[in-house]
Amino acid sequence: MSYTAPLAHMRYLLNEVFCAEQQWAQMPAFSAIDSSTVDAILEEGAKLCSNVIQPLNRSGDEEGARLENGKVITPNGFKEAYKTVADGGWVGLSGDAEYGGQGLPKMLTVLFEEMLYSANNSFTLYVALTAGAALALRAHGSDELKKKYLPKMYSGEWAGAMGLTEAHCGSDLGILKTKAVPDKNNTYKITGTKIFITGGDQDLTSNIIHFVLARLPDAPAGPKGISLFLVPKVLVNENGTLGSRNAFSAGSLEHKMGIKASATCVMNFDGATGWLVGEPHQGLAAMFTMMNYERLSIGIQGIGCGEMSYQNAVAYAKDRLQGRSAQGVANPNGIADPIIHHADVRRMLLTQRAYNEAGRAFAVYLGLQLDVANHHPDKTLRDKAQQRVALLTPVAKAFFTDKGFESCVLGQQVFGGHGYIREWGQEQLVRDARIAQIYEGTNGIQAMDLLKRKVLGNDGLWMREFIAEMQNDMQTGAVERDGVVQACSLLSALTLWLVEQDKRDANLCGSAACDYLHVAGYTIYAWLWLKMMTADPQNIDAQVVGHFYLGRLLPQIHALDKAVRSGANLVMDLPVEKF
Amino acid sequence: MSYTAPLAHMRYLLNEVFCAEQQWAQMPAFSAIDSSTVDAILEEGAKLCSNVIQPLNRSGDEEGARLENGKVITPNGFKEAYKTVADGGWVGLSGDAEYGGQGLPKMLTVLFEEMLYSANNSFTLYVALTAGAALALRAHGSDELKKKYLPKMYSGEWAGAMGLTEAHCGSDLGILKTKAVPDKNNTYKITGTKIFITGGDQDLTSNIIHFVLARLPDAPAGPKGISLFLVPKVLVNENGTLGSRNAFSAGSLEHKMGIKASATCVMNFDGATGWLVGEPHQGLAAMFTMMNYERLSIGIQGIGCGEMSYQNAVAYAKDRLQGRSAQGVANPNGIADPIIHHADVRRMLLTQRAYNEAGRAFAVYLGLQLDVANHHPDKTLRDKAQQRVALLTPVAKAFFTDKGFESCVLGQQVFGGHGYIREWGQEQLVRDARIAQIYEGTNGIQAMDLLKRKVLGNDGLWMREFIAEMQNDMQTGAVERDGVVQACSLLSALTLWLVEQDKRDANLCGSAACDYLHVAGYTIYAWLWLKMMTADPQNIDAQVVGHFYLGRLLPQIHALDKAVRSGANLVMDLPVEKF
Repeated sequence: MSYTAPLAHMRYLLNEVFCAEQQWAQMPAFSAIDSSTVDAILEEGAKLCSNVIQPLNRSGDEEGARLENGKVITPNGFKEAYKTVADGGWVGLSGDAEYGGQGLPKMLTVLFEEMLYSANNSFTLYVALTAGAALALRAHGSDELKKKYLPKMYSGEWAGAMGLTEAHCGSDLGILKTKAVPDKNNTYKITGTKIFITGGDQDLTSNIIHFVLARLPDAPAGPKGISLFLVPKVLVNENGTLGSRNAFSAGSLEHKMGIKASATCVMNFDGATGWLVGEPHQGLAAMFTMMNYERLSIGIQGIGCGEMSYQNAVAYAKDRLQGRSAQGVANPNGIADPIIHHADVRRMLLTQRAYNEAGRAFAVYLGLQLDVANHHPDKTLRDKAQQRVALLTPVAKAFFTDKGFESCVLGQQVFGGHGYIREWGQEQLVRDARIAQIYEGTNGIQAMDLLKRKVLGNDGLWMREFIAEMQNDMQTGAVERDGVVQACSLLSALTLWLVEQDKRDANLCGSAACDYLHVAGYTIYAWLWLKMMTADPQNIDAQVVGHFYLGRLLPQIHALDKAVRSGANLVMDLPVEKF
Repeated sequence: MSYTAPLAHMRYLLNEVFCAEQQWAQMPAFSAIDSSTVDAILEEGAKLCSNVIQPLNRSGDEEGARLENGKVITPNGFKEAYKTVADGGWVGLSGDAEYGGQGLPKMLTVLFEEMLYSANNSFTLYVALTAGAALALRAHGSDELKKKYLPKMYSGEWAGAMGLTEAHCGSDLGILKTKAVPDKNNTYKITGTKIFITGGDQDLTSNIIHFVLARLPDAPAGPKGISLFLVPKVLVNENGTLGSRNAFSAGSLEHKMGIKASATCVMNFDGATGWLVGEPHQGLAAMFTMMNYERLSIGIQGIGCGEMSYQNAVAYAKDRLQGRSAQGVANPNGIADPIIHHADVRRMLLTQRAYNEAGRAFAVYLGLQLDVANHHPDKTLRDKAQQRVALLTPVAKAFFTDKGFESCVLGQQVFGGHGYIREWGQEQLVRDARIAQIYEGTNGIQAMDLLKRKVLGNDGLWMREFIAEMQNDMQTGAVERDGVVQACSLLSALTLWLVEQDKRDANLCGSAACDYLHVAGYTIYAWLWLKMMTADPQNIDAQVVGHFYLGRLLPQIHALDKAVRSGANLVMDLPVEKF
């Protein structure tokens, strides 16, 4: 197995489909970036992922992370590879330049994130968690905390970790129990147990900066009584050097289906010293400001896995001889034809590819919206982009990961029996991709966030505006626009129906959310395929895969539409005791 | 985790939906069976699976089968449990009574098979392979071979194994290379390497009877040059006692995604002594006569996994407190409501249940067809039943396992993060269920068997006759029949379209097969839900779950229909080098 970054498609998206240079020219933070710099970054990133990170993927899965004498040991090679990544400045790629980050646009960094996930899910999580934690600190920390911690996080010298979940609460953080008691010098003593802490401990960095949700003594019950604390593994002296060990440690590691080289820790905080980040009781809100980034990143895990699985499956399908092509013998000198000549194998490969490439386009689009929201000089455009980000992030997270998992299952199926054998790598991708549908808010939670908060919360206004954007985009008239126009109309009508019916049935939203999100996802992918087809009519790949998507996959919206409209009673009528 | 066999639904299917006693009364072989015997068998089988077999499921997965000094060691407890199963007569449950089998109807034994798979996939494979091998021997072996081997296979004293796949061929057995050279006393020397041999070696039984496909020296090339051989691990003396060890052994075990307690062996045959089963060069045909049984059984693995996952998910959903019901607080004394009150959780649970129960009904229907085909005194009915079996077995195998896997993924999702942790068991079901979509002919192969051989091979006649049977079944007029009638019409029209279009495009069949199989599967499940709903209108479970299926899941046929009709070009247009 080997990984080759899909640079041609990535460049096509940046240069032809989304005209990145023109976009960046409008934002002072990015106006100096030109396409040759971008090319160099993508190429270096691709080499790093292929040559340094991907080779540790299988061995990391077999070896796993382990806990010895209270310390996490990562698999062989992870330490050296992490140092290479950190030394190259890759950890702080999208970090704030004021604190030593590279300050590159999200529109670009989403592509590098995809490469990382393609190469090695477990390894990438150590990097991604640091980027996410730095984001929370940058948005809500005091200047003092930012100066003290951000540069060493961006440089990769220290890592980050997020402590949200407890044994009795994950989706419902309002009921968490970890306590924070004020102590001397504006510090707090943190006590409680957190579970599912990715990279809660590891041997890659000299310090790990935990961001922990906890309750202050005077906190009101529920989600409005939660505060966010910075809790370093090793206390940091005034002069920036490392001091004594803080009072917390990893109690155990979870035994998981996949991402086995990622240390998923139970963390015991035993009066650990922490610093408040942001305002008291505003911890959940602070978490939410970084969530659009984090959720997009985890979504990209789905695309990364799907792409790696596709590459493996194509290589196998070109090599494996079995049966003869329905059109006649394709490989007369062999005992059989390569299975890529079988239509059913192509159906699987093209399904993978259609999802992967539309997902990549959507990630770039959302990256652009994040860039505009944060860096465009025009406030109207910033606000509109922020609204798009809020609306579409749950779609991206859930749809990328659902389709990424589906893509990995198909890529495994192409291998037949060999797909089930560990050595071939396809089954690991299925196991690794599966977590992305679950963590960072399950896809069911994403669907409720979309439908309840982002759609019904404004009577469908945001979604209607976004649909109008997609419709406007098609006015120039591609041949294949009919199906996309129809999909937009279906999504629009279904949105209106839900806004109307929601008032009459408290359960409708929950019963509809998941299928509604998928209608939105399929429609957005259709719009993006049309964009990819029209950006360059000579791009054969885009034409053929786009037609495949529109003809064979987009029709799912009709089934989902009927399912949503069948109403909530079908879901709620069975008494609890009859389950 | 614990397993409780769904006896109420199983009895409902036998007694109310398919009127088993009336069916059996028409077949001399089964006319003595009454419902109290059947009840006793189901109850004893349920106890065995819950108390003896299921408790070994998690430990077996963690421990795995291992190879030591050329011998396979099964996980702790397997040996004792296997002895209990064998001593109870369960291995030969559907075996020919003339050779010591229990001779019970398939319509009943499919239900016990489901219980076995729910309890423990790996363990069950050791039992299922023996039943399958005995079936091949009974159908094609000489009287001498049958007398010598069948009784000890039915008793569970000896096990069976099937040697088909080689490293370079699985789906395309015509190119296999293992050689059989005639030797003294009507024996043959078998030489070659087989892979993916389930239970190729184990420590549960004193002998393992391998059925191996190989080529005779004068064999024509391709699938018509393959013969079937019986190759015992330990040679059996004239008097039935065990003699010397035969010349073959397990070279290694595969490292797999799941079914880890099942020994999947590479078997090296080094001039091993074998006996021809059936006619020379007719080995593949001999395999095919048992395939309808085996494929149905492997399909049932999908149902068994789905049912176990559903039971776990329901227990968790009733216990786990997270968030509040959209209808208002359901559990005022708790910090939150059980998640079964959330509509999206119910959607997942009901989807699992709708697939599991319709699958069970389909398995019973196909079991009945197998019984009629083998035991009915009326040849016309036997032939018709045989035709149904041939047509529907690929649908059952592929649709059961696709929906079983989907069900397991949903059942894992209900658990949120805990679904990804090994200790909870849900992720093992996903890993174990996955193989059933691949082995015993991948689901792509099943789809080609259905569309190419069983549908287009007779210009759609068999499918039209079966659709007419479903339509006749609905004449009595249930309220909900409209959707089912529409589905039958859609399947009928799509079948005609394919018969017509197939002549014009060699790739159409391959491009359409998988989606067409799913249209058939969804339609058959709709018909079966209608049967379950109408058999007893007071059965609330059947009414509610049936309505859920028809409203929310059946609409998939519209998307699949559009996908099939989009034609083969969309699948074949991309040049090989562009993948």
